[in-house]
Amino acid sequence: MTGEFAAIAAIRSRLPGPTTPGEVWIGDDAAVLPVPTNGRLLLASDSVVAGVHADLGLTGLDDLGWKAMAACISDIAAMGGEPDYAVVAVAGPAGTDLGLLYEGIAAASTEYRCPVVGGDLANAPRLVVTVTVTGSSRGEPVLRSGAHPGDLIWVTGLLGAAAAGLRLYRDGRRGPDPLLAAHARPRAEIAAGRAARTCGATAMIDVSDGLAADLGHVAEASGVGLRLDAVPVAPGATRSEALSGGEDYALVFCAPPSAPVAACFAGLGQPILLGRCTADPGERTIAGEPFPASGWEHRW
Amino acid sequence: MTGEFAAIAAIRSRLPGPTTPGEVWIGDDAAVLPVPTNGRLLLASDSVVAGVHADLGLTGLDDLGWKAMAACISDIAAMGGEPDYAVVAVAGPAGTDLGLLYEGIAAASTEYRCPVVGGDLANAPRLVVTVTVTGSSRGEPVLRSGAHPGDLIWVTGLLGAAAAGLRLYRDGRRGPDPLLAAHARPRAEIAAGRAARTCGATAMIDVSDGLAADLGHVAEASGVGLRLDAVPVAPGATRSEALSGGEDYALVFCAPPSAPVAACFAGLGQPILLGRCTADPGERTIAGEPFPASGWEHRW
Repeated sequence: MTGEFAAIAAIRSRLPGPTTPGEVWIGDDAAVLPVPTNGRLLLASDSVVAGVHADLGLTGLDDLGWKAMAACISDIAAMGGEPDYAVVAVAGPAGTDLGLLYEGIAAASTEYRCPVVGGDLANAPRLVVTVTVTGSSRGEPVLRSGAHPGDLIWVTGLLGAAAAGLRLYRDGRRGPDPLLAAHARPRAEIAAGRAARTCGATAMIDVSDGLAADLGHVAEASGVGLRLDAVPVAPGATRSEALSGGEDYALVFCAPPSAPVAACFAGLGQPILLGRCTADPGERTIAGEPFPASGWEHRW
Repeated sequence: MTGEFAAIAAIRSRLPGPTTPGEVWIGDDAAVLPVPTNGRLLLASDSVVAGVHADLGLTGLDDLGWKAMAACISDIAAMGGEPDYAVVAVAGPAGTDLGLLYEGIAAASTEYRCPVVGGDLANAPRLVVTVTVTGSSRGEPVLRSGAHPGDLIWVTGLLGAAAAGLRLYRDGRRGPDPLLAAHARPRAEIAAGRAARTCGATAMIDVSDGLAADLGHVAEASGVGLRLDAVPVAPGATRSEALSGGEDYALVFCAPPSAPVAACFAGLGQPILLGRCTADPGERTIAGEPFPASGWEHRW
């Protein structure tokens, strides 16, 4: 075991520091950062709890660290923004392998060009990693509330892989496997979010709680109905995992039929057409059947 | 019990929303905020854990919420900055009285003019409240690292009240009492931090882990020694509580002898002179005796 301040020094030594004079990252009361130059600051916070969002009997502390970063960065991507900086607050038991946890945090930080500039370490009986990310947007951020009847609904990837991966982990599967990877190391779709924004997306959300639940938030905030034709299921996943599994972090967005979606996503994976927004806020159907009620929700 | 989304709606209804077009607070993937206009963004994150930072057998969930906000805002104050916005991530068990928790969060948000613009709700076996605050500074932020030999060391208030209050709570004391209040509802010294900054403070920190530990961070970051004459003990507190108790959130700052401290703090409580910085980084004495080793530190 080591003390808090030695642990902070160890974390600091494995993460990059600022290269611009006047910036302060890890090691003071607060980080001192440049402001976004486009007049908008995005801010999102997300907690990942051991045993709730990540089973440490199945995946590693490094995966948990990655997931905490990716889940929060995905919230910035879902606004069509770019992540700028992260602060990471770790509450957990003495003996937690912070080195391994920060391996995953550092990997995601590098992957998404989102430096960790500060945070907090505190003891708690169960590990809770809370990541807060600042971001910026070169144009108007895409909210949940802007969809109109007639807008087409798109998703940036196949769904259900993360839930299928968790099922396979529980069945004892290990080793390189795209479904296991989708669960252990989910990806934040920053480039896709930017493409959707520049393409004229009217509303967007990331699939964290399940397609049905997350699209429901968009419909509610926008006051539109949802008529989906089909749900694109990842190979190896079930339709139920695709609809309600969550944690895929694909982006779902709405855009007018005139939006040049294929051109906007040139060089990226092409989004898949899910259906359209309707004028009846009471409508939520998939191939004529009502949405399933299920989806992940914490209980209070 | 209620679901996560109903809980978020209830929280949203009890907190103010944005009044400026284009701003987005609670209810989307990320908050959309104006940027500070002075070229510097401050960012700090702090977790408060039930049973570690706050004993819910002694103080209330509302006090825990207040403390989580005040502790993080204090980090901004310790840079000489002003808090702008907070996001609050709550991880805790089903059945947690979020209404009571957010009473304290809302009270601190109002008191320190720091709106809660987003956050997260997730289940965890023990309550962990992580507050992240953005801030800004009208001038150069005051770091821990700028103290020089010869600088005088000041503290913005008497010390040990929070630790004494905890002792009294444990002894069964209840009711209005300044020591109990110092423990249950610590104050972030924003105005004092601003006064120290404008007065030419060279280094500053808030007393969260205990005077000896926190001043030690300043000495280490600045490469100076510390020669204190005495420690100002709050009435009813012990000298040990003043030195090592922590959670007082008074600010300790260093400033050249020429700094007009009394004038800078006109209208505020006058800071108390603790001693001076010396050229020998190995020196850490109080009235000629070495610093106590103790101070709060989480174990890893």
